[in-house]
Amino acid sequence: MTTYDQDNIFAKILRGESPCIQLFEDEETLSFMDIMPRATGHCLIIPKTPCRNLFDATTEQLQAVIQTVQRISQATRVAFNADGVTVQQFNEAAGGQEVFHLHFHVMPRHEGVALGPPGVMADMSLLETQAEKIRAHLP
Amino acid sequence: MTTYDQDNIFAKILRGESPCIQLFEDEETLSFMDIMPRATGHCLIIPKTPCRNLFDATTEQLQAVIQTVQRISQATRVAFNADGVTVQQFNEAAGGQEVFHLHFHVMPRHEGVALGPPGVMADMSLLETQAEKIRAHLP
Repeated sequence: MTTYDQDNIFAKILRGESPCIQLFEDEETLSFMDIMPRATGHCLIIPKTPCRNLFDATTEQLQAVIQTVQRISQATRVAFNADGVTVQQFNEAAGGQEVFHLHFHVMPRHEGVALGPPGVMADMSLLETQAEKIRAHLP
Repeated sequence: MTTYDQDNIFAKILRGESPCIQLFEDEETLSFMDIMPRATGHCLIIPKTPCRNLFDATTEQLQAVIQTVQRISQATRVAFNADGVTVQQFNEAAGGQEVFHLHFHVMPRHEGVALGPPGVMADMSLLETQAEKIRAHLP
C-alpha cells in the first residue's frame, strides 16, 4: 500500500517521458495544469522526488510542496480574479487519490460557481492560455 | 478580504474562551475534532498564531501546520483502520471557508463510504470516544 510505482504518470512527467503544461519549477517541486480540471485554472503541485502520498512523504518534501501550493494559490487568485481557492490532497484510492505520487490540487473559485465534475478532459489550447495567465503572476 | 477577525471561533478556542475536543498541541499548531464531521474521525489542524488562510500565512505557519496534518493523518488512519485520508483546505467563502483562521481538514476514509453532508452537528460524547482513539496513536 505504501510502495511507489515508478511508472505513474507524474513520475513520467518528471522524467520528461510524458508532457505537461508546466507552470513553475524549483529545486524541489513542480507545478502544472490538471488536464481534467474541475475549475478554471486548476493546477497540481508535486515534489520532484518520489513519494506516494502524505503517509510516506518526508518533512522536507511536504515543506517544499506547501510553499509552492501557496505560491500557486496566490498566482491563480490574481490571474483569474478569483474570489477564493480550494485546496485538496488525496491519499490512497479511498481518499480520492488516482495518481500515486503525492500531489496537491489548487482550484481557483468564483462566487456561485460549483466545482465541475471529475474526469472530464480539457481542451489543451485552452489550458495553455490559462497557464500563460498564471505564469505572468509567478516569479 | 485579508484582515484577521480576532473573534472567529478558532481564535476563541486558542484563547481558551471556547471549548474544543483537543487531539494534539505543539509549540506552533493545535489539532481538535471537527464538531460537524463529514467522516468518522474528521479533525482540524490550525496554527496557533493568527492568519486568515493560505493567502496571508507565513512560510513558518504553513510548514508547522503541514507537519501536524501529516501526523494527524497517520494517526487517524491507524485509529480507524482507514483505507485512505482526504485533506481539504479552503480559502475565502468562495473557496469553501467558513471560519477565517487557516485550517486543514483531515478526513479518514473507508472504501465505498462517501463523505457525509456538511453542517451536521455531531454527538459530543461520540467525538470524545473518537478523539481517545486518535490520541492513542499520537506521541
